Amino acid sequence: MLIARVVGTAISTIKDEKVQGRKLLVLKQTDPTGKLIGKPFVAVDLVDAGEGELVLTGHGSSARQTNLTKDCPVDAVVVAVIDHLNVDDKVVFRKE
Amino acid sequence: MLIARVVGTAISTIKDEKVQGRKLLVLKQTDPTGKLIGKPFVAVDLVDAGEGELVLTGHGSSARQTNLTKDCPVDAVVVAVIDHLNVDDKVVFRKE
Amino acid sequence: MLIARVVGTAISTIKDEKVQGRKLLVLKQTDPTGKLIGKPFVAVDLVDAGEGELVLTGHGSSARQTNLTKDCPVDAVVVAVIDHLNVDDKVVFRKE
Amino acid sequence: MLIARVVGTAISTIKDEKVQGRKLLVLKQTDPTGKLIGKPFVAVDLVDAGEGELVLTGHGSSARQTNLTKDCPVDAVVVAVIDHLNVDDKVVFRKE
Amino acid sequence: MLIARVVGTAISTIKDEKVQGRKLLVLKQTDPTGKLIGKPFVAVDLVDAGEGELVLTGHGSSARQTNLTKDCPVDAVVVAVIDHLNVDDKVVFRKE
Repeated sequence: MLIARVVGTAISTIKDEKVQGRKLLVLKQTDPTGKLIGKPFVAVDLVDAGEGELVLTGHGSSARQTNLTKDCPVDAVVVAVIDHLNVDDKVVFRKE
Repeated sequence: MLIARVVGTAISTIKDEKVQGRKLLVLKQTDPTGKLIGKPFVAVDLVDAGEGELVLTGHGSSARQTNLTKDCPVDAVVVAVIDHLNVDDKVVFRKE
Repeated sequence: MLIARVVGTAISTIKDEKVQGRKLLVLKQTDPTGKLIGKPFVAVDLVDAGEGELVLTGHGSSARQTNLTKDCPVDAVVVAVIDHLNVDDKVVFRKE
Repeated sequence: MLIARVVGTAISTIKDEKVQGRKLLVLKQTDPTGKLIGKPFVAVDLVDAGEGELVLTGHGSSARQTNLTKDCPVDAVVVAVIDHLNVDDKVVFRKE
Repeated sequence: MLIARVVGTAISTIKDEKVQGRKLLVLKQTDPTGKLIGKPFVAVDLVDAGEGELVLTGHGSSARQTNLTKDCPVDAVVVAVIDHLNVDDKVVFRKE
């Protein structure tokens, strides 16, 4: 999974019916301190994550292992909101 | 999924029979404002996307979770035309 | 899928029996004009592609969705020979 | 699989129920000498790896081939703690 | 598949039982002439490849399509030892 920050939302007018109604978030990967790294991607929100929050994202076929995304043509889901991250026994990120 | 722009079409003369007849689009990943980033790829069009439009693409085995692509040797599909993208509570892209 | 050019062939003496006898091509990804980009990879040829030709390649589990590659430990196949590619309503590549 | 070093842990408050209770490690890929390379990722710990240890990680659908992760939306697991790595007939890494 | 060179071996003390006993090789991707490119990875050896040899590796779910790796949390296997590679009608690599 990746550590990623919710940076926005995507609204689409034409969709595969199985994806219809799913909340789509725009995310960017971060390092453990929350610093943005890498390119943006879009994932189905499973945990009602808010904009700006740090989350864990699951990718590939793993993204279909949930009731909401089973058999859907989606390849990324937000599986958890991160509470805190520890690196070298220090808390490097904590949810406000 | 990725945010991508349709930049062209691919026409091929010899094809696996299961892929035959599918419209193949040439795409490039974009950032949420629509700026092109990354290398080109080819995806099966599921939503009749037009050239220049911003779309969402599904990759890997997720690309086979549709009636049109089931059991096909394709690894990317266009699943939605993007209407608008919000980042930091601002609309950074809107379909014309 | 990727746009790629056939740059060579790979001959191997020891192989998983399910892959044995398959023609293995060495490819490099190209942009829509046929310019080489990215690192080389090897794919099973499904369409009798010739050296120098521009082809479409399918990757990951999608590469096993054909009679020739079913249940094989291969992760890339050549699914089509490209006839021409259109970008911005211009033909940017045409097979000779 | 990748050679990676455990650099920390991730604690999340909201989780898909199938992932709940799993220990999530923050890792970075390393070269065979243990030097950090590449971006961080998060994996489910299967082997009770300690912070600082060098481990092997399995990715994608392979990460679900264990009793702890079957049918879970996770795409990376720690499958082994590395004891030592040999390159050019020399031991380039040994667990302390 | 990738062209890769066997650069070493990985020995691990704690392993998922399904992976236990498998020979794990450390590899680096190469170009068709055998020049090292890219980051190291670890794969299960299916063909008794020797250190220094050029091999073909299969990745992702394709790595589980063999008797030795079925249902195992491994994402890379060595499927063949390369005998020779032809590029532009010239032999650019030949096994010694």
